[in-house]
Amino acid sequence: MTTIQGIEVFDVRFPTSVGSHGSDAMNAAPDYSATYVILRTDHPNGLEGHGLTFTIGRGNELCVAAVKSLVPMVQGRELKDIVAGFGRYWRTLVGDSQLRWVGPEKGVIHLATAAIVNALWDLWAKIEDKPVWKLLTDLTPEQLVNCLDFSSVNDFLTKGEALAILKGLYAGRQEREAYIRQHGYPAYTTSVGWLGYSEDKIRRLCRQAVAGGWSNFKQKVGGDGAGDCRRAAIIREEIGEDARLMMDANQVWGVDEAVARVRNLAAFSPYWIEEPTHPDDILGHRVIRERVDPVLVATGEQCHNSVMFKQFFQLQALDVCQVDSCRVGGLNEVLLILLMAAKADVPVCPHAGGVGLCEFVQHVSIFDYIAVSGTLDGRMTEYVDHLHEHFVDPVVIEQGCYRAPAKAGYSGQMHSVALETYAFPGGSAWQAPSAGRQS
Amino acid sequence: MTTIQGIEVFDVRFPTSVGSHGSDAMNAAPDYSATYVILRTDHPNGLEGHGLTFTIGRGNELCVAAVKSLVPMVQGRELKDIVAGFGRYWRTLVGDSQLRWVGPEKGVIHLATAAIVNALWDLWAKIEDKPVWKLLTDLTPEQLVNCLDFSSVNDFLTKGEALAILKGLYAGRQEREAYIRQHGYPAYTTSVGWLGYSEDKIRRLCRQAVAGGWSNFKQKVGGDGAGDCRRAAIIREEIGEDARLMMDANQVWGVDEAVARVRNLAAFSPYWIEEPTHPDDILGHRVIRERVDPVLVATGEQCHNSVMFKQFFQLQALDVCQVDSCRVGGLNEVLLILLMAAKADVPVCPHAGGVGLCEFVQHVSIFDYIAVSGTLDGRMTEYVDHLHEHFVDPVVIEQGCYRAPAKAGYSGQMHSVALETYAFPGGSAWQAPSAGRQS
Repeated sequence: MTTIQGIEVFDVRFPTSVGSHGSDAMNAAPDYSATYVILRTDHPNGLEGHGLTFTIGRGNELCVAAVKSLVPMVQGRELKDIVAGFGRYWRTLVGDSQLRWVGPEKGVIHLATAAIVNALWDLWAKIEDKPVWKLLTDLTPEQLVNCLDFSSVNDFLTKGEALAILKGLYAGRQEREAYIRQHGYPAYTTSVGWLGYSEDKIRRLCRQAVAGGWSNFKQKVGGDGAGDCRRAAIIREEIGEDARLMMDANQVWGVDEAVARVRNLAAFSPYWIEEPTHPDDILGHRVIRERVDPVLVATGEQCHNSVMFKQFFQLQALDVCQVDSCRVGGLNEVLLILLMAAKADVPVCPHAGGVGLCEFVQHVSIFDYIAVSGTLDGRMTEYVDHLHEHFVDPVVIEQGCYRAPAKAGYSGQMHSVALETYAFPGGSAWQAPSAGRQS
Repeated sequence: MTTIQGIEVFDVRFPTSVGSHGSDAMNAAPDYSATYVILRTDHPNGLEGHGLTFTIGRGNELCVAAVKSLVPMVQGRELKDIVAGFGRYWRTLVGDSQLRWVGPEKGVIHLATAAIVNALWDLWAKIEDKPVWKLLTDLTPEQLVNCLDFSSVNDFLTKGEALAILKGLYAGRQEREAYIRQHGYPAYTTSVGWLGYSEDKIRRLCRQAVAGGWSNFKQKVGGDGAGDCRRAAIIREEIGEDARLMMDANQVWGVDEAVARVRNLAAFSPYWIEEPTHPDDILGHRVIRERVDPVLVATGEQCHNSVMFKQFFQLQALDVCQVDSCRVGGLNEVLLILLMAAKADVPVCPHAGGVGLCEFVQHVSIFDYIAVSGTLDGRMTEYVDHLHEHFVDPVVIEQGCYRAPAKAGYSGQMHSVALETYAFPGGSAWQAPSAGRQS
């Protein structure tokens, strides 16, 4: 029996805006941030659950406050009881009749829910002494669907259909696990193409990435059209004709504008256009998808819950599902979305980068391959090479692939010195003169 | 020149859960609450802007915090500059590149935006010495569309189309204004049918309402099916066959369940079924709409922005648009939704009740009639008779109609004693023994 005795929450921010890391057409100067949760327990070995949600600076204080508002639903609970009916528990967590009003299942309150839920999975996996991906693959299909709440999606995917998907792939699990342990999970890099980087820097980073074994690259677009093309030309020149080049507009276009801009970039053979318009605009994505073919349409990092993803699938409005491990309500909802994507035959290429997202999504993608999709066709997980040094068990990339994590947990645990140094606004990183822009 | 010199924000909560007022299938025990904003200015007459957003208790603290996060975008601004490019300013308010991440345009941050935006309109109207509805109707079509941001909806409604709608009705404005001043705007009452009321109480309230001149009534459903039918029978018996009876499920059903339950209630001739399923489920609403005809499908009180409403219209997924004056980003976004509804030929029957919502939506509905839809056909605005005593300029209902407000402003200003008494958690209303459930 392990009881959650206390919940601590930290406002952690990294002054990434100083170097234009993470800059794109919508987000000129993000300060990558985390609402970081520690679940303290009475476990004899002192095990804790660590989880986080990702934000880009201002507004992180709201997610911190929302975690505090959710504490009564977690404090004092037995982990065994929670995971025994994890789907049902998840519904109670998002279903508090008063807190639900400020969602429901969206925005600040849902981001905060993700931090807590991710911490619960970390704790469960540590107790089982397995990485989360292995904990998941070792669950029976029945145990797995018991972690999910189908109430808002069962007109598209029933529990029975989800079970059938999982059972259909159950026999080959060990073989696919062995494959991943040997080869890793394919990734792409976004580190070469931030909008705020100089053209010289982009060229240099492309050369480094090619030398490092990468063959899938992403650039940011949505700035001025000529600049987008110039940077695309540089990248294409460096990575060659056969490498995949993805483009990401970060929501800045209207529907017609998106179509025109993508056609303008067609000479550089983009593999997908990501977030071409407002993340809530399912129909808009569908129209763009029809009109920019054969360029694929990818979206999902700001798609806020399973009800929205359901409609993206029902309307065939996306080609690539980029679920985020923190935007929706933590791993339970991510798993539900993986299963819906499998039914819809849509590849899942999770959103990552930021802080901690790469650490989480490697588990998601590995589980997806072993137990849900059973294929790597068209699959690759985002990778950005920032801030991993702050994690106890950081991701390991080799030849453009994520190595399967070996340590117990969900890999989102930060070093305590990072929590102190980057605490906002009191940490030492925010006392330096260059860190003034948050004030 | 009037400068916004300071912004105060209050956490105000009313212990309404004690009497089961506002109880429905999703919200068993709401404590009607407001994140209440005062804009202090240097106006020579000491004019202030008062605005609020509505919540139902826990979580109000998050909206209060979000208003504080938005202060830098308002403090020190000239009102004249804001309203001169109000559409553009609105976009900057929802577009802060860091805060946007915890939305965008949804949940806590958007509710907080509404409180501020509503206060700006209150201030503008007070400076012009007009009620908001009159300020709006006195704007030229060009001035009106200048208050709107079309960037996320212009694949459905362009600025030019909005102008054409407004210009088309411009000639008859004075006549319709005179009509409203004489007759008021039609309303319906939700006060008779809360889920937590006893059957005796429902019968008594129905008799009182009929005697008071009401002919449109709403009951809450979504409890156990037999109980829903029993209460429907009582209400129908009391109000007669010709009165309209609306039913509101507050989102608790799945799609198939909603269809079955509505068919089960058909014997009581519901005029509409409101929020039959999850508010984000546009396609789900469309399926229900097709299958419960001739019962209308109404939704919108938790539809979080204009992008979502756009798709409800594009997919013909609703019969009645119940926009909320605080859920979307304040009056500017409400106006955009009115214009989209006019293009889609969908009647707008705004959501109200709670605290302050009736005070706001009377302005919205009157403006809609005078300048946007030009008709009262199928239109009626929700009314609930709670908490009006706390307002300086409360709504006036006569014979089931809202009287046109006469005082300057947006009518959302509370008495300062209410702000003190119901301040949470320090106010005297929360020191009483019965007020313990929020702790």
